[in-house]
Amino acid sequence: MDMVKVNSMDFGEFVDVFGNIVEKCPLIAAAVWSQRPFSGLEDLENHFFAFIDALPRSGQEGILRCHPDLAGRDLQQGTLTAESQHEQSQAGLTSLDTDDRLRLQQLNAQYRERFGFPFVLAARLSDRATVPRELARRLQCQPESELRTALGEVKKISHLRLTDLLGAHSHSARVELP
Amino acid sequence: MDMVKVNSMDFGEFVDVFGNIVEKCPLIAAAVWSQRPFSGLEDLENHFFAFIDALPRSGQEGILRCHPDLAGRDLQQGTLTAESQHEQSQAGLTSLDTDDRLRLQQLNAQYRERFGFPFVLAARLSDRATVPRELARRLQCQPESELRTALGEVKKISHLRLTDLLGAHSHSARVELP
Repeated sequence: MDMVKVNSMDFGEFVDVFGNIVEKCPLIAAAVWSQRPFSGLEDLENHFFAFIDALPRSGQEGILRCHPDLAGRDLQQGTLTAESQHEQSQAGLTSLDTDDRLRLQQLNAQYRERFGFPFVLAARLSDRATVPRELARRLQCQPESELRTALGEVKKISHLRLTDLLGAHSHSARVELP
Repeated sequence: MDMVKVNSMDFGEFVDVFGNIVEKCPLIAAAVWSQRPFSGLEDLENHFFAFIDALPRSGQEGILRCHPDLAGRDLQQGTLTAESQHEQSQAGLTSLDTDDRLRLQQLNAQYRERFGFPFVLAARLSDRATVPRELARRLQCQPESELRTALGEVKKISHLRLTDLLGAHSHSARVELP
């Protein structure tokens, strides 16, 4: 898909295609449509990121709370979005043995309790061995810095999802690593 | 459901229950959870409304763009949310004859073209005769005032949905009529 096509979309088409760039937040794609035309993937994703950055803290936490736990209830019940299913599968989280799954559920619950939002990680950049280690590490972080880290992961996920849709050839965009 | 129950919910439960108070915008419910505890329905809905009012214009337009057309594609395809299906059905929009449906589709298309968001109306406060008349009337309004009118309808819809969940007995809340 090229940017000429993207820039020609009405808002209905745009939300159909980009509505889950930020997990379960079609509102953000629907808002970003106001900023068209877009010069390329980087410009498009910068509008998504600017919208996230401009939200009040409750809104930023709200974005995080729309994300599923990794290897959690939605995966067990088959109610993940297609994008999340793909990402968790790529990280090997769909084939954990029972012990590993229960360990991750326990860590997820501790994390939610401590921060008031779920542990968000760009699963495609990780794997089944790394996820629980990173979760245990971030569980020790301070709330302020952890919110920033988690939003950084949301942006990495958005970047990968946009690249899937638009093709890597169209991007000069980078996601800043923390 | 009483407020003691609401105030005891973790964010997962809260988003499960209130995620569609604003159509397809679980982000807003997820953000509002940060403001708990709530003293009653009016307090709870005021937090939803305050979040909407604090968004930049693109975000407010984004909320509107997450709404389906009345008697439109989602109704035809059976892809409305449960709440919208109920509301459009109550207004008699699920049983229009072909002429009336096509007339409404034409008006909806003109409205979307003029304002860049769909025609939003609290359908439960309307009926099949009033909807096309109101649509034709609002089509003539100025964009600035029409955005305010449409967000007022979003709030009326939210109020009715909250009252369904929490019971009218718990509310001293009113929705301001324009």
